[in-house]
Amino acid sequence: MYDFEFHNPTKIIFGRGKEEEIGAVLNRDGIGKVLLVYGSRSIQESGLLERLKENLGRQGVIFAEFGGVVSNPVLSHTRKGIELAKSTDVEAILAVGGGSVLDEGKAIAVGAVAEADIWQYFTGRVVTAALPIYTILTLAATGSEMNGNSVITNEENSQKYSLTSPLAYPLVSILDPQLTCSVPADYSAYGAVDAISHVLEAYFTRQPGSRLQDRMVESIIKTVMASHEVIRRHPDNYEARAEFMWTATLALNGLTAAGVGDYSFPNHMIEHSLSALYNIAHGAGLAIVMPAWMRWYSRQHPAQFERFADKIFGLKGAEAGIEALEKWFQEIGAPVRLQDAGIGWADIALIAENAADLARLWGMDDLYPREVIADILTLAVE
Amino acid sequence: MYDFEFHNPTKIIFGRGKEEEIGAVLNRDGIGKVLLVYGSRSIQESGLLERLKENLGRQGVIFAEFGGVVSNPVLSHTRKGIELAKSTDVEAILAVGGGSVLDEGKAIAVGAVAEADIWQYFTGRVVTAALPIYTILTLAATGSEMNGNSVITNEENSQKYSLTSPLAYPLVSILDPQLTCSVPADYSAYGAVDAISHVLEAYFTRQPGSRLQDRMVESIIKTVMASHEVIRRHPDNYEARAEFMWTATLALNGLTAAGVGDYSFPNHMIEHSLSALYNIAHGAGLAIVMPAWMRWYSRQHPAQFERFADKIFGLKGAEAGIEALEKWFQEIGAPVRLQDAGIGWADIALIAENAADLARLWGMDDLYPREVIADILTLAVE
Repeated sequence: MYDFEFHNPTKIIFGRGKEEEIGAVLNRDGIGKVLLVYGSRSIQESGLLERLKENLGRQGVIFAEFGGVVSNPVLSHTRKGIELAKSTDVEAILAVGGGSVLDEGKAIAVGAVAEADIWQYFTGRVVTAALPIYTILTLAATGSEMNGNSVITNEENSQKYSLTSPLAYPLVSILDPQLTCSVPADYSAYGAVDAISHVLEAYFTRQPGSRLQDRMVESIIKTVMASHEVIRRHPDNYEARAEFMWTATLALNGLTAAGVGDYSFPNHMIEHSLSALYNIAHGAGLAIVMPAWMRWYSRQHPAQFERFADKIFGLKGAEAGIEALEKWFQEIGAPVRLQDAGIGWADIALIAENAADLARLWGMDDLYPREVIADILTLAVE
Repeated sequence: MYDFEFHNPTKIIFGRGKEEEIGAVLNRDGIGKVLLVYGSRSIQESGLLERLKENLGRQGVIFAEFGGVVSNPVLSHTRKGIELAKSTDVEAILAVGGGSVLDEGKAIAVGAVAEADIWQYFTGRVVTAALPIYTILTLAATGSEMNGNSVITNEENSQKYSLTSPLAYPLVSILDPQLTCSVPADYSAYGAVDAISHVLEAYFTRQPGSRLQDRMVESIIKTVMASHEVIRRHPDNYEARAEFMWTATLALNGLTAAGVGDYSFPNHMIEHSLSALYNIAHGAGLAIVMPAWMRWYSRQHPAQFERFADKIFGLKGAEAGIEALEKWFQEIGAPVRLQDAGIGWADIALIAENAADLARLWGMDDLYPREVIADILTLAVE
């Protein structure tokens, strides 16, 4: 066990219809005016947006509206949100949607009270203030509802970068699994891939030891797979949606990585380039990158991959576990090769170049220079 | 998955020598004067108390001292601490010790700013204020360092009752596994029993479902057992002490019970009477009560006990799992029968009477009337 600090102050309110508590929650915290951040069609079509507006109105909470957040949320739109937050003088951000909406909501919360341009905080500047953040989650995957991370894409230079700060933890996140029952099959699958990737990064790259964390990671992966098997066949199954939703939250709330020593996010580092350059869904990109990275990395560190094969699939040998995971990704409808996403050999240099920039920013360029990233990508092409 | 709220705002600072950060932590929070609550010999003999006083002095934090907290902490001593906290006008409580010291520290934090006598909050009155609580843990077992619980014994009427409040969560808890290396073998064993009991109460009494929580509980039990096996042979082993310490914290920080629906603490309910009447160490009392309760309860609910036997011990059948756990308790030096603690058949009526009072307070008297408690105890005698 390595030294660590753990502090996750987000309050989770979990269950059927709990979004109806949002006005009361804001009232209790003395918040009188919020910026309501959301995506586009789905929460309007489902009637959720209207219900929330009515709820806020009944509770006397004033709101300004900011819709139009896209999957892989972009900097230009974030900047517009920041301007609106400033001009309307809101006291807090209320983000309603999936990880993209939450991430952009967090960036707006920081940008609205920041001294510098928001992009500086995605390239190393330390966050010193943020508006309070409240969230209502409608798509389980990223864990953003219970962590201090935000990922935004700068479309000008195709950089998909992240910000992490204690000030970016939501104060309250409301998780109603019913709201996720309408998530389509492909995004449900990408969510499962994303949650698995979050626990696997530290599981494979951490320092030796950490048996408790290994066991918790394996508990999470087994639960993601079991609940997703039900969701595939019965998208409306509340129990499975609920189990997956909470599991995805725990997959990136700091718990499985506390005490494991130094670790890194190589799969996210490479995937961010796929999303930034080709606007691939994050989970889809991860399903492509992970098997390739696992094959490359397991050559140097086979032991933990052998454990993975045994504990998750009851199989012997590192490659057997990687193959089984890859096969499962395919079965649930995720792409597992670049060519599945229309990307070919000719693109590797561009992707590697883009990812190498992020490797430098994250201090991983000694382990992941451009040539190594290109090597990994060659295992992902076809 | 059942509806739940999860909110655990305690910050954990974990690692070698981290207690040296206490002065800086208090300074950062603007705390200028604390009541330093502790037990007796061990933290004085080890030099820890002196080191902490020096640290507070260097950081300009004024402190009043309140030692003498005993295992199974008592109400009369708690009341003295409350008087001292009031008369010295401290701004916060700094509890340094094991679960007993932390629990009494929490009670003092509540009592120092309470409208009513402190015992009222242990018999149902809702806590509405408390001084901020900081802890430095020297014995891993109870999880008090990361939850809102406090257990105090009223010696006047032999009631060992508890208080639970969001206001009783420590703001910061410092966990240095080195400080636990000197914990003697018997208390190390009781700590292991206690941590296992904390996860097993909900595991066996919760509503159906909850596969993730089951897996997390099993992860915790396996890690407690594996780390304690090392501690028994090598009490100074840092890695094992660290693994056990963090595992014991997670065993009762709300995580494994979030979403499992209604559940209860029957083993704690009965054990509290053993501690209150005979001043048995809590973990020792649990090692006596648990096998008996498990045998009684598994007759009505065998399925989860069969799972327990399989997942923890690789055995078939409810009784095989209970036997294996009981045998392990014996091996590590915990008593498993009342007679091991000098308690006989003649005491059952008294214990059952005492526990039935707590069952009424906890609203469990329909399931656990006095006669049922006596039945369970008969399985624990010899």
